[in-house]
Amino acid sequence: MHTAARPGLYNPGVMPRAYAPGAGAAGAAVDLDADESAHLVRVLRLGVGAKVRVFDGAGREWVGVIRAAGRARVSVALEAAVDPAPEPRIAYALAVAVLKGDATDDVVRDAVMMGVRAIHPFVAARSETSLAALARGHRAARWRRVAVASAKQCGRAVVPPVHDPVDVGTILTGAPGPERVLLVEPGLGAAPLVMADVPPPAAATFAVGPEGGWTAEERTAALDAGWRPVRLGGRVLRAVTAPLAALAAAQAVWRDA
Amino acid sequence: MHTAARPGLYNPGVMPRAYAPGAGAAGAAVDLDADESAHLVRVLRLGVGAKVRVFDGAGREWVGVIRAAGRARVSVALEAAVDPAPEPRIAYALAVAVLKGDATDDVVRDAVMMGVRAIHPFVAARSETSLAALARGHRAARWRRVAVASAKQCGRAVVPPVHDPVDVGTILTGAPGPERVLLVEPGLGAAPLVMADVPPPAAATFAVGPEGGWTAEERTAALDAGWRPVRLGGRVLRAVTAPLAALAAAQAVWRDA
Repeated sequence: MHTAARPGLYNPGVMPRAYAPGAGAAGAAVDLDADESAHLVRVLRLGVGAKVRVFDGAGREWVGVIRAAGRARVSVALEAAVDPAPEPRIAYALAVAVLKGDATDDVVRDAVMMGVRAIHPFVAARSETSLAALARGHRAARWRRVAVASAKQCGRAVVPPVHDPVDVGTILTGAPGPERVLLVEPGLGAAPLVMADVPPPAAATFAVGPEGGWTAEERTAALDAGWRPVRLGGRVLRAVTAPLAALAAAQAVWRDA
Repeated sequence: MHTAARPGLYNPGVMPRAYAPGAGAAGAAVDLDADESAHLVRVLRLGVGAKVRVFDGAGREWVGVIRAAGRARVSVALEAAVDPAPEPRIAYALAVAVLKGDATDDVVRDAVMMGVRAIHPFVAARSETSLAALARGHRAARWRRVAVASAKQCGRAVVPPVHDPVDVGTILTGAPGPERVLLVEPGLGAAPLVMADVPPPAAATFAVGPEGGWTAEERTAALDAGWRPVRLGGRVLRAVTAPLAALAAAQAVWRDA
C-alpha cells in the first residue's frame, strides 16, 4: 500500500497531476499537450518553478518542475520517480451497454476509479442509440477524455483504454475470458449467483446491460457462451450505478483492495 | 428470494407501484395522497379498473385495483398481499455528510436501493453548507421524497427514514451502535481495514465524509469514539459514489444479498 498523500477529492491542495503519454524517465523533460498545458496554466494558474506530478497512463509517475509555461505547451523536467496509486491485483474489464444521455460518462469515471484495465462499450438491444449515432457524436473520444480526467483525480497512473463501441453480440459471444460475470437483475429467470460464490480469478470481465435490462435472447446467448449470471442484492439497481456496485462487491469479496 | 417480476428500470412495463403510508389490509380500500394520485392519473394515465401495487413503506405490499380516479385522490381496493422485495438481513444505516449541489439526492436514492434502514445526513467541517441553509432550503423534505421515489423504483416496500440533518459531532461521538464503520480515503493516516476484515454484524452504521474529506480532528474524534476506519480499494473514490461502493462491498462480503 502506498503511503504518500495523493491528489483527488479527498486530499485537496496537494500537488497537481498532469497526463503525458510516452513520458520518459527521471532527469528527462516532457512537453505536455495543449489540453494538459492549458489546464495547468489557465485553470490552476501555475508557472515556471511550480512542482507537479506527471503520469504516463501506463503506470509510471514522477515529480517534476515546470521549466516553461506557455498556454499551449508546458515543459516539465522530471525529477524523481514516485510510487503511483496501487493497481488491483486482478485484471478487471468492464463491458457496459451505452446508457441514455451522458450516463456512460459517469460509468467510465467510476470504473477508472475502481481500477479497471479496459472498458468495452457496446450497444445492446435496449440501448436507445446506435453505433452510427455514437460515431457521429464522437462519443468514444469523449469517454477517453473522461478516463484521463478520472485517473488524474483518483491518483491512478494507469489510464485504461476505452475501446470503440461494438454490437452486443461481439461482447456476449466473443472470445471467452478467464472469468466472465453477467450482471443480472434479481427476481428474473433462474436464481443467479452472488459475488461471494465466484472464486477469485486472475482476470474478470463484467457485463452490465442498459436501463431496460438484457433481453431474454441476450441472457440466453450469454449463458450459452459461458457467462456467469450474478446479482447484486435483492433489489433493482440503477444501470448507471450497477458497474460501480459490481466492482466494489468483487474487490471486497476477492480482497483485492 | 422473491420470484415475481417487479417494477423498476430493469423490468419496464410491469405493474405501477404507489406509496400509501398507513395502508390497511387485503379487502380494504386506501386513498392515495395528492402526489401519488397525480402520478397515477396524470403521468401514467391510469383510470378506474387499472391494476396497481400499493406499498405502505413499512414492508407490506398489495395488489389492488383503482376504484376511483380523481386528479387529487385515487382510491385503490387492496385485493391480495404480495411478497415485497427482500430486505437485507443486516440493519444498515448510512450517515452521510451533505454534499455539494444535489449530490446528496443521488446518495439517498442509491442508499435506499441498497436496502438501508435509516439515513442520517450531517454537516461536516468541510461540508459547504450549514444546518440553517439546509433548513431554509427544506432539504430534508426533498430527501424524503427522493427516498419514496427510489423505493418505488427499486421494488422495496420499506421507505427508510431520512432524519433531519445534524452536526458532525452528533454523528461521530453520539451513542455507540453495534458496528460503526468510518469510510476513509486510502493513503492517509494509519493503515485502515478493508471490509473483509470486519465480521458480519447484526447492524452497521457507515459514515461517509464530504468531498473534501474528514478533517484530522473528525478522524481522531471518530476513532476515539470507537469507529472502525475502513478503506475501499487503493484509489480515491468520489464522495457521491463512496456510500454505494461501501454498501455493495459490505453486502458482498457479509453475503447479505
